Amino acid sequence: MKPRQIVSEMDSYVPGKSQDEIAAEFGINKEDIIKLGSNENPWGPSPKALAAIEDEINVINRYPESDLREIIHEYALYSGVNDNQVIVGGDGADEIIDVLAKTFIDEGDEFIVPIPSYMYYEYLLLQYGAVPIYARWDLDKNQLDVDSVIDSITDKTKIIFLCTPNNPTGTLISEEDISRIAEINEDILVVVDEAYFEFSEVTNKDLINKYPNIFIIRTMSKVMGLAGMRIGFGLSSPEIIEYIFRIKPVFSLTRLSYVAALNTLKDKEYIKKSIEDGIKSREYLYQELNKIDSLKVFPSKSNFILFNVEDTGMTATELARKLMAEGIIVRDCTSFKGLDDYWIRISICTQEENEKFIEIMKKVLD
Amino acid sequence: MKPRQIVSEMDSYVPGKSQDEIAAEFGINKEDIIKLGSNENPWGPSPKALAAIEDEINVINRYPESDLREIIHEYALYSGVNDNQVIVGGDGADEIIDVLAKTFIDEGDEFIVPIPSYMYYEYLLLQYGAVPIYARWDLDKNQLDVDSVIDSITDKTKIIFLCTPNNPTGTLISEEDISRIAEINEDILVVVDEAYFEFSEVTNKDLINKYPNIFIIRTMSKVMGLAGMRIGFGLSSPEIIEYIFRIKPVFSLTRLSYVAALNTLKDKEYIKKSIEDGIKSREYLYQELNKIDSLKVFPSKSNFILFNVEDTGMTATELARKLMAEGIIVRDCTSFKGLDDYWIRISICTQEENEKFIEIMKKVLD
Repeated sequence: MKPRQIVSEMDSYVPGKSQDEIAAEFGINKEDIIKLGSNENPWGPSPKALAAIEDEINVINRYPESDLREIIHEYALYSGVNDNQVIVGGDGADEIIDVLAKTFIDEGDEFIVPIPSYMYYEYLLLQYGAVPIYARWDLDKNQLDVDSVIDSITDKTKIIFLCTPNNPTGTLISEEDISRIAEINEDILVVVDEAYFEFSEVTNKDLINKYPNIFIIRTMSKVMGLAGMRIGFGLSSPEIIEYIFRIKPVFSLTRLSYVAALNTLKDKEYIKKSIEDGIKSREYLYQELNKIDSLKVFPSKSNFILFNVEDTGMTATELARKLMAEGIIVRDCTSFKGLDDYWIRISICTQEENEKFIEIMKKVLD
Repeated sequence: MKPRQIVSEMDSYVPGKSQDEIAAEFGINKEDIIKLGSNENPWGPSPKALAAIEDEINVINRYPESDLREIIHEYALYSGVNDNQVIVGGDGADEIIDVLAKTFIDEGDEFIVPIPSYMYYEYLLLQYGAVPIYARWDLDKNQLDVDSVIDSITDKTKIIFLCTPNNPTGTLISEEDISRIAEINEDILVVVDEAYFEFSEVTNKDLINKYPNIFIIRTMSKVMGLAGMRIGFGLSSPEIIEYIFRIKPVFSLTRLSYVAALNTLKDKEYIKKSIEDGIKSREYLYQELNKIDSLKVFPSKSNFILFNVEDTGMTATELARKLMAEGIIVRDCTSFKGLDDYWIRISICTQEENEKFIEIMKKVLD
């Protein structure tokens, strides 16, 4: 049984280590592990989400409703757009990216991604036979090299991914740069990934009224505290939203994900506090890491911070392993295309965890 | 922004009516609606699943583990196969079908489905540019016309779907017929959809050791009582399982779906009782419907029953609407390819609901 050519050329999947394995390997308690690797909300989900799950738990034997209008309406309100400009997906932003590829990518089409950026775009688009073209994130200035994107456009370009704030570098792409790129060719979809926009307090959502080829990606996995429930959203022109509805999975949002998302969106106080606390945590971590001479720390508009560890005399992999032995999981960025062996990304955490992390960093680097 | 040719030719998506809308339209209480349309487990989820969800609820701000080995091991035990013969998906069986298409379908490939059968195969495979070839389910004998499948095979055939017990007709495809089809060409994937196998007490899982091109689909949405949590499984050769792992979504199973599935699989008593009660309910419904002269009722090995209503003088749509006015949702099968306007499918329900449904059927047909 032969798979498609594309699949036969792919690498085998290697699962990451589970927390149980990490705990066993380093002889630490699973409960004591501090997770700074995945840019989650460290304060837990909204109490209103939890209450809604409790109310729904006895009917999980029933299929989800295929009618998604209520949650779409709530997200439209949250975003300040119209209902017909919103789509919801059941595997976080990842499902949104997948249906975008399924809607627009024919084999051989090119997509542009300035690297380093979120690696999952490429993981998904390669499956549809798309060809990655790498533009450049200027690491010296920590900003998008917008000309490198424009210069990468060919008549085969179908999608351009712009992540803002960019993962893993943490800074914003200007509205001017996004507009400049969107104006070039209306038949090229410009995907603006705003997974972390709340922490920057900047959104490009008004651009969807100006450019019919802009698609904004959102997620409930970050500020909304629901990474484990897999909910994503997209904002775009009614035309594009309608195309995607034709082919998206009908039931991919679980019953409990649905009520958790709906009730988190209604919990304005939780959202506000998550943003405020997130920004506070980020600024604390930035200041404290900046005091460590051997680290080159990037300022961030997101809920994570990227720093270069070359001056420590260790690679990112070596340092990450030392931290893991102390019960701290960070993101070793060696596998990010566009970064060398010396970059680590950490997520915001609670103040107690922040202090413990900084203390351990100093100890490990001592 | 133009979508792919295939997408531009598709129909717009029309969501089904929500229960709130049905209740409002017919002036009935939402709580009184009896749901016989979706082949769910009417007795609710396993108490062990509910307890596991309660235990996990406070960490849904964390991403799911990407390591799926524990649940795969548990499902392998349940199925009597090896761990490396199992894959799990996060949108019920639908995600499994989607990744099968993504793994094996190139544009222009053909797939064969004997109709009537589960319509979602076609919904998904069309998105990958596959061409449907319809074979025939013999409605007079209520069995697969195996020759019609074999005669449909061409050098473009990539996948053959065999649903057993078949949805919506309810009866089994023999192991002999499956083997006969699988033997024809090792490069054609034979997908045996066993979503309902527990109610027939027959599985073809041993065939995966005999034929490298057989893939068995399973789901937690039926006997396992977790339709709302979207968990599916596949059983096949280690080679095919490995290919699929290369491209399947990494995080599509929510945290709560994971623990619900794992703990339902461990609840042997719940599974046993769900099967026993399901078969009892089916046999009761079959007997009672059979007593109504104007219905032609198919025997079933599943958790649903198909019957023909032509002799009532009503179409299925008319009858379904009358039942809906009485608070009963059935599956009007008019949209199933291969069935005419006179077929209705009902799911098993609790004994109380069974009796009420039969009573209302008699009243409506009186």
